[in-house]
Amino acid sequence: MEKTKKEYCYGTCLLTSIVINILLTTYILLVHICSESGFWWVDIKPFHRRHRHEREELEIGYKLSWSAKAAGEAEAVAAISCSGHGRAYVDRGVCECYSCYTGLDCSQLSPNCSADADSGDPIFLEPFWMQNAADSAVVISGWHRMSYVYNDNTLMSSELEKYIRKMHSIVGNAVTQERYLVFGIGSTQLLNAAVYALSSQNSSSPSHVLASVPFYRVYKTQTEYFNSKTFNFEGNTTSWKLNNSSNNMDVVEFVTSPNNPDGEFKTSVLGGKTIYDHAYLWPHFTPIPGPSDQDVMIFTLSKLTGHAGARFGWAVIKDKDVYDKILNYILLADLGISKDTQLRVLKLLKAAVKDDGKPLFKFAYKTMRDRWERLTNVISKSTRFSVQQRHPLHCNFFNETRLPSPAYAWVKCEREEDEDCGAILEAAKIKGRAGSVFGAKDRYVRLSLIKSQDDFELLMQRLSELVLVENGNT
Amino acid sequence: MEKTKKEYCYGTCLLTSIVINILLTTYILLVHICSESGFWWVDIKPFHRRHRHEREELEIGYKLSWSAKAAGEAEAVAAISCSGHGRAYVDRGVCECYSCYTGLDCSQLSPNCSADADSGDPIFLEPFWMQNAADSAVVISGWHRMSYVYNDNTLMSSELEKYIRKMHSIVGNAVTQERYLVFGIGSTQLLNAAVYALSSQNSSSPSHVLASVPFYRVYKTQTEYFNSKTFNFEGNTTSWKLNNSSNNMDVVEFVTSPNNPDGEFKTSVLGGKTIYDHAYLWPHFTPIPGPSDQDVMIFTLSKLTGHAGARFGWAVIKDKDVYDKILNYILLADLGISKDTQLRVLKLLKAAVKDDGKPLFKFAYKTMRDRWERLTNVISKSTRFSVQQRHPLHCNFFNETRLPSPAYAWVKCEREEDEDCGAILEAAKIKGRAGSVFGAKDRYVRLSLIKSQDDFELLMQRLSELVLVENGNT
Repeated sequence: MEKTKKEYCYGTCLLTSIVINILLTTYILLVHICSESGFWWVDIKPFHRRHRHEREELEIGYKLSWSAKAAGEAEAVAAISCSGHGRAYVDRGVCECYSCYTGLDCSQLSPNCSADADSGDPIFLEPFWMQNAADSAVVISGWHRMSYVYNDNTLMSSELEKYIRKMHSIVGNAVTQERYLVFGIGSTQLLNAAVYALSSQNSSSPSHVLASVPFYRVYKTQTEYFNSKTFNFEGNTTSWKLNNSSNNMDVVEFVTSPNNPDGEFKTSVLGGKTIYDHAYLWPHFTPIPGPSDQDVMIFTLSKLTGHAGARFGWAVIKDKDVYDKILNYILLADLGISKDTQLRVLKLLKAAVKDDGKPLFKFAYKTMRDRWERLTNVISKSTRFSVQQRHPLHCNFFNETRLPSPAYAWVKCEREEDEDCGAILEAAKIKGRAGSVFGAKDRYVRLSLIKSQDDFELLMQRLSELVLVENGNT
Repeated sequence: MEKTKKEYCYGTCLLTSIVINILLTTYILLVHICSESGFWWVDIKPFHRRHRHEREELEIGYKLSWSAKAAGEAEAVAAISCSGHGRAYVDRGVCECYSCYTGLDCSQLSPNCSADADSGDPIFLEPFWMQNAADSAVVISGWHRMSYVYNDNTLMSSELEKYIRKMHSIVGNAVTQERYLVFGIGSTQLLNAAVYALSSQNSSSPSHVLASVPFYRVYKTQTEYFNSKTFNFEGNTTSWKLNNSSNNMDVVEFVTSPNNPDGEFKTSVLGGKTIYDHAYLWPHFTPIPGPSDQDVMIFTLSKLTGHAGARFGWAVIKDKDVYDKILNYILLADLGISKDTQLRVLKLLKAAVKDDGKPLFKFAYKTMRDRWERLTNVISKSTRFSVQQRHPLHCNFFNETRLPSPAYAWVKCEREEDEDCGAILEAAKIKGRAGSVFGAKDRYVRLSLIKSQDDFELLMQRLSELVLVENGNT
């Protein structure tokens, strides 16, 4: 009897144990079968703790083969900490420190380092892309689009073209219906392509290329460099107009609106052929009053999403003949834009137009508005320095009246003796870009407000120190 | 007694079952602990069948976060079958069929389709990159190198420069020690940059730009298009030399070696300033007799790894002054090359130099040699058509004497009445590039041998048909 009881107990235990055996084996087999059955498998780890918010999006996991190695490399490098004052990129894999920071992990601040507000590097948008890492990453296979052309025999991705048009229609900053698009290496290349396309075809009467002071220096340096028989750079529109009153002259005018350096909306002065440089016509820099509808409008990714390094721009063109000419320039200059870059830009724009662009533009506008508030707060305490006036305008995109928050502060030294404003700032450890670079007086200096937060903080610190000195506090 | 035996049996079974339970539980826990412990985890699935050779490399798996989505997308698109006659790319995600194939999965061959041997699209290398998928894939994060410049304030990745120098030193085709490198948008942009850099700085005495017939048409179209006051394109070297015997003229001569279209090694005819276009100076097209050591040498990724769509080339430059000028051209034309492209090219070159480049160049050479064998076999049966003579040379890279296997067949119609060889071939459904495009007679046609296998097979079929007709068999 006792033995039967013991036997019964053994039997139950054995049965339980076997059931557990079967369950565990089934679990293991299931995981493996799922992972073998296709590309996508459900991540069924129940006691898998999810540390980061982002993980939530990734409940559906991926069973990867050839892309796993590259993805692992990219994530390992991205995980390298550079103390928030530098960045490690996958092509080098070590911390590259922002200016004024040094050390292997960029933790050391160089004392007495100058604030660099010279370049228009749009790093202020970097945090947005780090917050949207999963949506903006792209994997390029070794065999991705090796051909010179897309399947429709063009040099441009029609998919990317679609998203550029979508972006303009969301923002309402440019008419693109029934307009032609051409991609270029940044807006830089397209500026020159447009000059060639709009210029006289006859070397005996070259076109006059002009811009209105203060203007972006590249118009001059580039046009002079290429030195074609069909055009000459003639400098400032207004001074040229005084000496050339006849109306029938062949002019090509650069109109930068909003303007670099001062953020002003500009229109044509000469009334001839125009190249509208709309690099800064985005809601984070200016209220959008309505869609621009010019003959040739040039945009750049750099000032939209912040990817200056990708070298991508586009022209929106009304006239078929001008379109053909700009396309021909791109074909002869370099057979079009890198297919890898076009793929990446597509991915970035797909992420940028999400929720009708609200997340991107809200982030970007808020950053610029905050920076302007802090800047004007400091400058308001000074009588020695001033910045450009800003006028409120209705923004169709945000549907409210707002002050512009331009990419650059156009600073003026007000004291009569401060003729070289750049030197005054330089002495106070602030690097700007001198007015004369833009054809203006050196009483003006351009300060970039679109660089990294570190750069901006240091700029604020140095400016505050300078204004404190002015007010007798040292 | 019997019961004790039964009991003993139960005991053993239970013990075994419990041991199995413990083992299974340990296995499951181990997998989960490993996968939680960091970025890298060992894929310890023992009964995981590996279908593909590639899987072997991936015994180390990755626990991914932000890159997983993009990687999953890329692999899902790569897995789309296009019947071997098309390719789906991640920017569109649908089959794009090669010429002559149609249908959603590219399975239908269009009857009577012409063989297209016109363009220099180097798709013959695509299979190599599909075979080396894991080593050549690259993941680009949304925040990858947003700045205009690298950390050293240049527009060029020093890491990439290192690998380009390494490639040249492995192949032995160019001296790069104590030489300057500049990157461009394909070799195309660098050709023009070099013309500007080498030309007269004085508009009153423009430089004469020339090339030797037959030559690559872009030298002419591009130089004429940019139409600078400092240079003029003057056409063919030999005919120009007859009319301009004075030695002190300022000339810039394009020397293409091996030559496009005929594959000949070329040297300078005029003895003035030269731009050596070495696009085809790689072991798959020609035996490498030794390192070239010219003042300005231009290379392109397109004809090295087959990535024409990436638009990447480089110049190797001896003189500091010329280097500064070419760098300045790139700066003014478009502020340098896309950082995304530079990252991808780095990854491709890292894969290309593996095992001292042997896998890449063996694959590429074998493909070209096989194609030339089949081509010469067909042409040998014809008296109506001929191709260029090929002469064996010692190849330092492969360390043996070999015949060249140029990128293009330079076909001649031998019958006196066949003055328009392109039209003869066109009638037989073969598209080539007419001799006159290269400044030669239309009795010649260039046929591209570096396109996809499908294109080559169709070319062989149409050529064989044509030769059969010639020999009285229809």
